[in-house]
Amino acid sequence: MHYFYSSLADPDQFILLDEEAAHAHVLRLKPGDTIYILNGVGYKYQCIIDRLDKKQVMGKVVARVLIEKPKPNVTIALSPTKSIERYEWFLEKGTELGVQSFIPVMTQKSERRQINLKRLNKIILSAFKQSGRGWLPSLQALIPYEKFIQTCNSEYKLIAHASGTGFREFAFKPDTQMTICIGPEGDFTDHELDFALQHDFQKISLGDYRLRTETAGVVVAALLANN
Amino acid sequence: MHYFYSSLADPDQFILLDEEAAHAHVLRLKPGDTIYILNGVGYKYQCIIDRLDKKQVMGKVVARVLIEKPKPNVTIALSPTKSIERYEWFLEKGTELGVQSFIPVMTQKSERRQINLKRLNKIILSAFKQSGRGWLPSLQALIPYEKFIQTCNSEYKLIAHASGTGFREFAFKPDTQMTICIGPEGDFTDHELDFALQHDFQKISLGDYRLRTETAGVVVAALLANN
Repeated sequence: MHYFYSSLADPDQFILLDEEAAHAHVLRLKPGDTIYILNGVGYKYQCIIDRLDKKQVMGKVVARVLIEKPKPNVTIALSPTKSIERYEWFLEKGTELGVQSFIPVMTQKSERRQINLKRLNKIILSAFKQSGRGWLPSLQALIPYEKFIQTCNSEYKLIAHASGTGFREFAFKPDTQMTICIGPEGDFTDHELDFALQHDFQKISLGDYRLRTETAGVVVAALLANN
Repeated sequence: MHYFYSSLADPDQFILLDEEAAHAHVLRLKPGDTIYILNGVGYKYQCIIDRLDKKQVMGKVVARVLIEKPKPNVTIALSPTKSIERYEWFLEKGTELGVQSFIPVMTQKSERRQINLKRLNKIILSAFKQSGRGWLPSLQALIPYEKFIQTCNSEYKLIAHASGTGFREFAFKPDTQMTICIGPEGDFTDHELDFALQHDFQKISLGDYRLRTETAGVVVAALLANN
């Protein structure tokens, strides 16, 4: 099954341009072939190609289905790792597992102070198409930790810390919106942890062993995806 | 905390050689520094360095603790992925999450027919030390699928397939030994699935969405690690 990403202006026809058209070309698709287009906000369109070249693909929409939004609605706030490859795979796996929003936060011990949003969004888009999920996650710009804590307005606000209580209970609350903040390599400072608790965050623990920061992110996503 | 790996012949003294000694050198450790040595089968030794050069590190053991074995005892049988990097990170994350044994199986649709065991064992060892877990997982040689199915003698024998039932119930059986077999990119053939069912494997599902094979492996590890 070949998935593409495009918002459709017309409910009966489609056009793919730029990288999506190039991708169709790489796959050697032909007129008459069936493809699926995801619009990123829930709809999957079954389409037939009429004509195509390297720059555009055009055709008809023959059916559409609305894909259910992942439940619970999960936001993961994770500090970018020193090795960006590790952050990239966290984004890839998180997307596959249905995380709806990623917030890169800059904590005191964060070793990386800048990220390439364009590249990271490309990784998310690719994982989104690969998974066949209908909802494209959002990726926010880097935000200082304090500002993130002050502005978070989720129903459940959680912060991962070894001193917290077990996580499983939160994995059984499908109809909620939750944000989980995970510390950097070297963890939060005491001040940062206190600051979160003062702003109604609850501490949760991900187990007794030290996990790499990006592993913790994927564990959270895996636990919440398997309700 | 600096972790090293070595089996100790003498309960009161230690010697690190080869790569472990080179690692101590890279960390610029000095006489008098404290290190921790994991022997891979449960013991963590607190040690003080007496003397060291690039080739060896020697010193005294001052304390030891026995680390509990991960529960349940999990074996994951996963076909090597076309991109070996994806398999490598599955091994890294699986080790961090406490998987005790990895079996690379060759199924009909497996695209990769050989692996570099030495390199993969190095990745497992590195993740093992990083995590501070006391039990070094084993990695078996590539085995044909049918042979794996015929010789598996776990208490619970599971095979991941979309047609299976939910996985969560197995995540609450800490005192068991279980093997989970996960399909390759392109999944098992019907014949392979039937063959497993004939040999007392139970089908389990990892959810409604298609996951990359290595993501499925990490999801299984994450769910079982968080009892």
